[in-house]
Amino acid sequence: MNKFLPPYLGAAYYPEAWERTELEKDISRMKELGVNVVRIAEFAWIFMEPEEGKYDFEWLHRAVRALGDAGIAVVICTPTATPPAWLTKKYPEVLAAMPTGQKFVHGARRHYCPNSPVYREFSNRIITHLAREFGKYPQVVAWQLDNEFSCHINACYCEICEREFRQFLRKIYRTVENLNQCWGTGLWSIKFNSFDEIPLPKPAPAMHHPSLIFYFKYFMSHSFSDYAREQVRIIRKYSGAPITTNGMPPWHELDYEDLFSNLDFASNDLYYPPAELWKWCPELDWMRPIKKKPYWVMETSATGAGGLIPAAVFVHNPGAIRAKCWLAYALGGEAVLFWLWRAHWSGQEMEHGSLVYAWGEPTLAEKEFRQVSKEIEKTRDFLISTKPEKPMVGIHFSYPALWLFNMGHLVPNFNYINSWHENYYRILLDAGISRDVLYPDSDIMDYKVVLSPFMAIVPKRTRNKMYEFVRNGGLWIIGPMSAFRNEHATAFKEGAYGPLEKIIGAHIRHRFQAPPGGMKINLAGYKNASCSLWCDAFIPEKGTKVIASYADGPAKGMAAIVERKTGKGKIIVLGTHLNREVLSGWLVKEIKKYASVEPEGGKGIIVVKRIGEKRSLEGIIAVDIAGKGGGIALEKEGIELLTGKRAGKVFSLPPYGVAVVKL
Amino acid sequence: MNKFLPPYLGAAYYPEAWERTELEKDISRMKELGVNVVRIAEFAWIFMEPEEGKYDFEWLHRAVRALGDAGIAVVICTPTATPPAWLTKKYPEVLAAMPTGQKFVHGARRHYCPNSPVYREFSNRIITHLAREFGKYPQVVAWQLDNEFSCHINACYCEICEREFRQFLRKIYRTVENLNQCWGTGLWSIKFNSFDEIPLPKPAPAMHHPSLIFYFKYFMSHSFSDYAREQVRIIRKYSGAPITTNGMPPWHELDYEDLFSNLDFASNDLYYPPAELWKWCPELDWMRPIKKKPYWVMETSATGAGGLIPAAVFVHNPGAIRAKCWLAYALGGEAVLFWLWRAHWSGQEMEHGSLVYAWGEPTLAEKEFRQVSKEIEKTRDFLISTKPEKPMVGIHFSYPALWLFNMGHLVPNFNYINSWHENYYRILLDAGISRDVLYPDSDIMDYKVVLSPFMAIVPKRTRNKMYEFVRNGGLWIIGPMSAFRNEHATAFKEGAYGPLEKIIGAHIRHRFQAPPGGMKINLAGYKNASCSLWCDAFIPEKGTKVIASYADGPAKGMAAIVERKTGKGKIIVLGTHLNREVLSGWLVKEIKKYASVEPEGGKGIIVVKRIGEKRSLEGIIAVDIAGKGGGIALEKEGIELLTGKRAGKVFSLPPYGVAVVKL
Amino acid sequence: MNKFLPPYLGAAYYPEAWERTELEKDISRMKELGVNVVRIAEFAWIFMEPEEGKYDFEWLHRAVRALGDAGIAVVICTPTATPPAWLTKKYPEVLAAMPTGQKFVHGARRHYCPNSPVYREFSNRIITHLAREFGKYPQVVAWQLDNEFSCHINACYCEICEREFRQFLRKIYRTVENLNQCWGTGLWSIKFNSFDEIPLPKPAPAMHHPSLIFYFKYFMSHSFSDYAREQVRIIRKYSGAPITTNGMPPWHELDYEDLFSNLDFASNDLYYPPAELWKWCPELDWMRPIKKKPYWVMETSATGAGGLIPAAVFVHNPGAIRAKCWLAYALGGEAVLFWLWRAHWSGQEMEHGSLVYAWGEPTLAEKEFRQVSKEIEKTRDFLISTKPEKPMVGIHFSYPALWLFNMGHLVPNFNYINSWHENYYRILLDAGISRDVLYPDSDIMDYKVVLSPFMAIVPKRTRNKMYEFVRNGGLWIIGPMSAFRNEHATAFKEGAYGPLEKIIGAHIRHRFQAPPGGMKINLAGYKNASCSLWCDAFIPEKGTKVIASYADGPAKGMAAIVERKTGKGKIIVLGTHLNREVLSGWLVKEIKKYASVEPEGGKGIIVVKRIGEKRSLEGIIAVDIAGKGGGIALEKEGIELLTGKRAGKVFSLPPYGVAVVKL
Repeated sequence: MNKFLPPYLGAAYYPEAWERTELEKDISRMKELGVNVVRIAEFAWIFMEPEEGKYDFEWLHRAVRALGDAGIAVVICTPTATPPAWLTKKYPEVLAAMPTGQKFVHGARRHYCPNSPVYREFSNRIITHLAREFGKYPQVVAWQLDNEFSCHINACYCEICEREFRQFLRKIYRTVENLNQCWGTGLWSIKFNSFDEIPLPKPAPAMHHPSLIFYFKYFMSHSFSDYAREQVRIIRKYSGAPITTNGMPPWHELDYEDLFSNLDFASNDLYYPPAELWKWCPELDWMRPIKKKPYWVMETSATGAGGLIPAAVFVHNPGAIRAKCWLAYALGGEAVLFWLWRAHWSGQEMEHGSLVYAWGEPTLAEKEFRQVSKEIEKTRDFLISTKPEKPMVGIHFSYPALWLFNMGHLVPNFNYINSWHENYYRILLDAGISRDVLYPDSDIMDYKVVLSPFMAIVPKRTRNKMYEFVRNGGLWIIGPMSAFRNEHATAFKEGAYGPLEKIIGAHIRHRFQAPPGGMKINLAGYKNASCSLWCDAFIPEKGTKVIASYADGPAKGMAAIVERKTGKGKIIVLGTHLNREVLSGWLVKEIKKYASVEPEGGKGIIVVKRIGEKRSLEGIIAVDIAGKGGGIALEKEGIELLTGKRAGKVFSLPPYGVAVVKL
Repeated sequence: MNKFLPPYLGAAYYPEAWERTELEKDISRMKELGVNVVRIAEFAWIFMEPEEGKYDFEWLHRAVRALGDAGIAVVICTPTATPPAWLTKKYPEVLAAMPTGQKFVHGARRHYCPNSPVYREFSNRIITHLAREFGKYPQVVAWQLDNEFSCHINACYCEICEREFRQFLRKIYRTVENLNQCWGTGLWSIKFNSFDEIPLPKPAPAMHHPSLIFYFKYFMSHSFSDYAREQVRIIRKYSGAPITTNGMPPWHELDYEDLFSNLDFASNDLYYPPAELWKWCPELDWMRPIKKKPYWVMETSATGAGGLIPAAVFVHNPGAIRAKCWLAYALGGEAVLFWLWRAHWSGQEMEHGSLVYAWGEPTLAEKEFRQVSKEIEKTRDFLISTKPEKPMVGIHFSYPALWLFNMGHLVPNFNYINSWHENYYRILLDAGISRDVLYPDSDIMDYKVVLSPFMAIVPKRTRNKMYEFVRNGGLWIIGPMSAFRNEHATAFKEGAYGPLEKIIGAHIRHRFQAPPGGMKINLAGYKNASCSLWCDAFIPEKGTKVIASYADGPAKGMAAIVERKTGKGKIIVLGTHLNREVLSGWLVKEIKKYASVEPEGGKGIIVVKRIGEKRSLEGIIAVDIAGKGGGIALEKEGIELLTGKRAGKVFSLPPYGVAVVKL
Repeated sequence: MNKFLPPYLGAAYYPEAWERTELEKDISRMKELGVNVVRIAEFAWIFMEPEEGKYDFEWLHRAVRALGDAGIAVVICTPTATPPAWLTKKYPEVLAAMPTGQKFVHGARRHYCPNSPVYREFSNRIITHLAREFGKYPQVVAWQLDNEFSCHINACYCEICEREFRQFLRKIYRTVENLNQCWGTGLWSIKFNSFDEIPLPKPAPAMHHPSLIFYFKYFMSHSFSDYAREQVRIIRKYSGAPITTNGMPPWHELDYEDLFSNLDFASNDLYYPPAELWKWCPELDWMRPIKKKPYWVMETSATGAGGLIPAAVFVHNPGAIRAKCWLAYALGGEAVLFWLWRAHWSGQEMEHGSLVYAWGEPTLAEKEFRQVSKEIEKTRDFLISTKPEKPMVGIHFSYPALWLFNMGHLVPNFNYINSWHENYYRILLDAGISRDVLYPDSDIMDYKVVLSPFMAIVPKRTRNKMYEFVRNGGLWIIGPMSAFRNEHATAFKEGAYGPLEKIIGAHIRHRFQAPPGGMKINLAGYKNASCSLWCDAFIPEKGTKVIASYADGPAKGMAAIVERKTGKGKIIVLGTHLNREVLSGWLVKEIKKYASVEPEGGKGIIVVKRIGEKRSLEGIIAVDIAGKGGGIALEKEGIELLTGKRAGKVFSLPPYGVAVVKL
């Protein structure tokens, strides 16, 4: 396996779509460009099992062998995102259903029900064959499950899912009385006399019970994770290569903390347009800590994204393709794959950008791809022997919060992901504070500061962890709009924040939505402080400090932000959402009191400290992702490995520039 | 029953959602705030009949008793808006169907078919039990049927409804030939050979026949009214307490003239945000005359409205909660109930504002609620012994017109309710002209002036009434866009206004929609007169006076507004919609010629004259609903009852101020 | 038949909707206004066959006879757009289905499946009767099939259509292997093992295969054309009168090249509002050449369009009704019919404008209608003995391109019809270049210049034709966004333009969408040249001239427009979409090099040269369609036939003026 080492740079490849004679030509083109990894077989079920029970892997062996012979590593995918027509025609029960109950038809992708036993059986069979046939190739460096679980549809409303959903609830609540009790089904006569009365959230004249919707989202997320686990079990029997699946940005509501719990490393498909390259950062920042292993960017666009996204916004400025590759490596990735190698000549994604046109010539991405390919060769030792320094700051992202906020009834027009992105996360990023994105169950004891904005549900386990974290010296900044629901998606009866109220040392006396236009806030040092969205007004207990108070409106004079020292650490509770400018200044100041972070790059330049085996600082990688260039200040001088030249303590990057400095 | 007298101030209460031990605590909180009425049991079917045929009212007796013991009056609701899961699971035929024919599922509310015989049977049984059990409690001062008939869905497309719709048409038209004749089904080969061929307006490639749609709306409205009547018949057997149901603003297309015809008093749920408090007025103005009894505001928001309406716009400025309560009392109400007493800790409406938070503490509404509670005690005698003076001006609102205009094909983008609200109604309101909102069958002989704007259908009965009204000395201002359809929702063949043409003494020679930008109008005294929407151009008969004519456009020079003296009175016909400013000035001037109304308050201040048993003027109640305050001029001095101080002939109200002046 | 000669002016008439006694009154009103043609019986199936197998044509004979006796020509329609209720109730299989598979209900129109054998049978029977009964009347000057095929719905998703679609594909591709091969179904495991696995494009989680969607659109278009052909075959047995159907603007996706191939003359319904009168021109410009016979405007609005289009925008400025009639005659039409004669008193289209109100008086259109009626009498000889000079310039419109672009995935937010209209077509119109609108199979050898913008698919036959055209001396301007798909709706593997690349003498090296904001273009003589949408960058072969190149962006310096002389002619290929101003100037200049066209009217004035039997110039007809008036320069003096006065070489038209000048 020595031949097939990271760092990887490559693309997705679909030899099944082309004449057999194209294989050699394509591989030779790959070598010419510097491809050292391809992902393969993702949607090729119909080629592997052209008829029920008849298998054909010859074409795939031929491709895998030829790629390996050329020194190109291979990722093999399970083809379960696209059942063949013969399967869905003969066994229509495997098809996913819409909220109306109507089944989808063959012709696109992801039209299967993840809970269908028949589908699972066919899936198990094809994966068994596939893993057995390809499990031992040294060039097969990884497996990918399915493709983008939850993309297009994240829920199925068929009768199997209805049955399984009831079973799922039975496991959690044991008795229907307990479920009624926990969900508070007494209103609107929703109360169930048996689990069999529980509906899927199909069309009703008004909104379904939020606990039902919440648990249905949880159930569907669980269904995909469970299906992934079943795939993993099979592959593990036949192959030692690590297993992943390609995630997507979080809006598909699939809980990645759960999904990746049984996988070996994280990977993601990143289709943010070049102008939003900074949105790669939160994605890389959750992939790095989740498995504590180098992650992969499994897909990104070379020149344009097809389908229904305007391809125009994907035309990259000079340097941007190289910059995004380096951003991925810098923050802890070991692979970047473009989608796709060669443009399709048919089908739904013909318009999608690629490294090579359908007619065989390289696209506009050619030059920079080749450059990155050479650069990672040149810096291979540095990249392999170092990794990003562990950040002192973590920020929680919560799928249960996403499920709740996506129901749209809590704070209309509030978008959890956008608000999280644009405010709390981006403030850290722009201040040059390196950060990990954490999930509710993440280990947090090694951090200095943890932020939990908009974390609607703080589960008991997380609450206990965080309390421990604070008592051990950490700073926990929680809110706004956090901890107001319990794990059943209902409100606490004992107070707005439930058991957390005791911990924060303040009583939430009032709660209301900020009127349009917001309200003024008294916050020392910030004349223009104001707030919006949601207001909790506190009565502090003794020993709790008021940081900010409402300067007008119905809770005028009451506390809006409080702070409480606990053990060696501190909790700050934001009762409301500060205006961006003030939030930014204040938040960074508070964090710096606890975490000796120091911004090295300017806005738009990501500077990643790389440490060696013994946690010693070995160098930095700096990437300008905003396309504006700028100066960087280091602690000492070093060698810039791409140019081989000396890097001074202060040097500047050109637009989309990259520097790999060994210190 | 002496203990439980109006005026009432209270809230909706859901003891079934809470532990039994909370009952006493909540009642003690109610007493503390000054609650003297609660509405109860609205959605509690599953608690009353936990399984088919097994009834349990103990919990409700306990609550009603405890409330009564505390001196709090009770309104009991029939729980029929929310059938239990066991019912819809065992008898799915009771579920309402969507236009596609698909049945709704359990889990929200109002998912029943009002025409289902099975549903009616279960409904009758539970109401019989409920009425029998609670019909004699002195504290039960009223009954509420169901909840917000027609909210969420106002039509059902199931097979029962299809059958009943045909039956409904058979009763009206007797033969299908007659129906074909009246509807004019000859076009598009729509003609029916039998009633069984008449479809529900389910999906079709283009619009359905407007007469079909119109009669389907009429049928569905009738179905709910009929269901209400069935509920009334049962309750009346067991209880002498008056019966109502809680209406909503008119956009749900349920004809309240029909619905309330068999009920004892009117009530309504008013969720207009504080900035639109003036929209309470038309609601109160139809509730007062319809039953000639004090009405109730059955629901309004204390702090925020939940569900999908942004709660933020419901944050009240100081004084606004008190002002809206007083507005309701001033214009003839005897009860104001907030929704809800205590915030839900679970379910679809957790976010809704309340008087008390889920955790038991009073919300931001506390202070003003308590104040109103004390104020109505202090002014009880005045409120009980007086009532609003009967207005001299009436304005027609027509559900059949709403049904027609809501089809959207007559004048696209025209909104009947908004245009009626913002123009004709509001002109009266802003001029301080007290007014009643009338329905087509209302008695009108006691008024001096009646306006009928946008009254697309003027039924024969109404036409005859109005003619009599005019001959007896009244002023009838009709139009624009009135009387252009007959009762079958078709056009008149004998002229644009059908039989009305003879009465108005003018021939409608041309009809067209005003071009974008409108047209100029010649109207003496108004230089900037223009018109929009719809233009009828008249040729006046001898004796008919031209008030305004078109100054440009295709009907240049023709009459746009005509006036005809008839008997002792006068008819003015508006052929087009004047621009707001001119309409306002001209209309108020015309009205004042007939009705000696005199504005007392300024814009935004409602001044209601209160008269005693012998129609003598006893005092006034003034409320500022615009939040700007202002001066008021009275005929003589009096005593302001809330402060106990002398009120001069001229005095001023602070923002959201209230004055109750005994003269 | 001598009595019933063109030019015609009239309206649609529905005697079945009125009392029998109205017939004589209406005919006398028609005579009074100058109507000389009516269209009749369009939706009257229920009157012709009131019950299954029972026919009644007496009422229609009566009407046709009375009209003929009055000297009014008649167009009889087959009533198949509106099956009677008895038919769809007894044979529900004839109903069209929505994408969900649900059947439409009776009550509107066009709710039949064009492929239903049962429907075809009933249709054949009623048409047989109708044609037999009315085939020999001299006053029956034409037949209209159905009404607006494809209006409202252009696809049916029923089981019959599924079966027929597979049959249709079997005929084209013979084997499923061949279809898989041609469509490239290898991706997403879409590959079919048999034709029975091919789905209709019903709901799926993502887009269907574009070739499938494309062929489904083709199939549905073909289905309607095929149904039309079946109707034609029957009528031809019994009548010698010419047959047409009333088309609509192209957005309904019905391929008119196919539809009209078996019909005798073209006709169209034109409901563009008066402010967009110029949009009549492309409609008239395809109707004139397609059958090389005078076309008919079968419907246009007299005063307002009903249904859901705001009628307000249809109020005509003085002269506009006359101008649009004359525009139709000038460009080669022989009939203009208004919809409708007399406003309906019932049904879906009551609000639609008309020549006479429901109550029998003429509408605002009266004066101009009467004027046109007299004017065509006065100029009858000139109109009959001359026709428009054949244009030297043709512009391709392609339904297959429309089908492709309407899928929305190629260039999101690109609207083929609008871009074609507003840019390429309108540049010709505004420059006064007379033009024919051509379809892919049109004869083109007689033109000097052919434009093919946005012609996504250039079929082999068309490619060969165009090559021949160029070799013979023509100028072919192709692009942008042309020729990038083959006839299977897939991409070419051998190069971006497939076989066309050889012909144009340039290699398409890069393809990308222009970034937002566009890019600059180097084009000699045009400083402000820029481009947008789509960019193909060429490497010219020897002998190919670079006309324009990209001035910035990723293809900076590469050719954007190339030109190649071939035989006696020339091909210009637009690789990108130039900004409107530059495109306009440059394009007109290029065209003028080849076609000695010369603008005679100014912008907004259409001047049509009329030639006699021997192609000699006999005169001109000029119409101002922009309502601004302006001057006209002729080659010589003549007589203006409407006034009988001398027309100088230079004269001017008033707003909406018309001049018919005999030279």
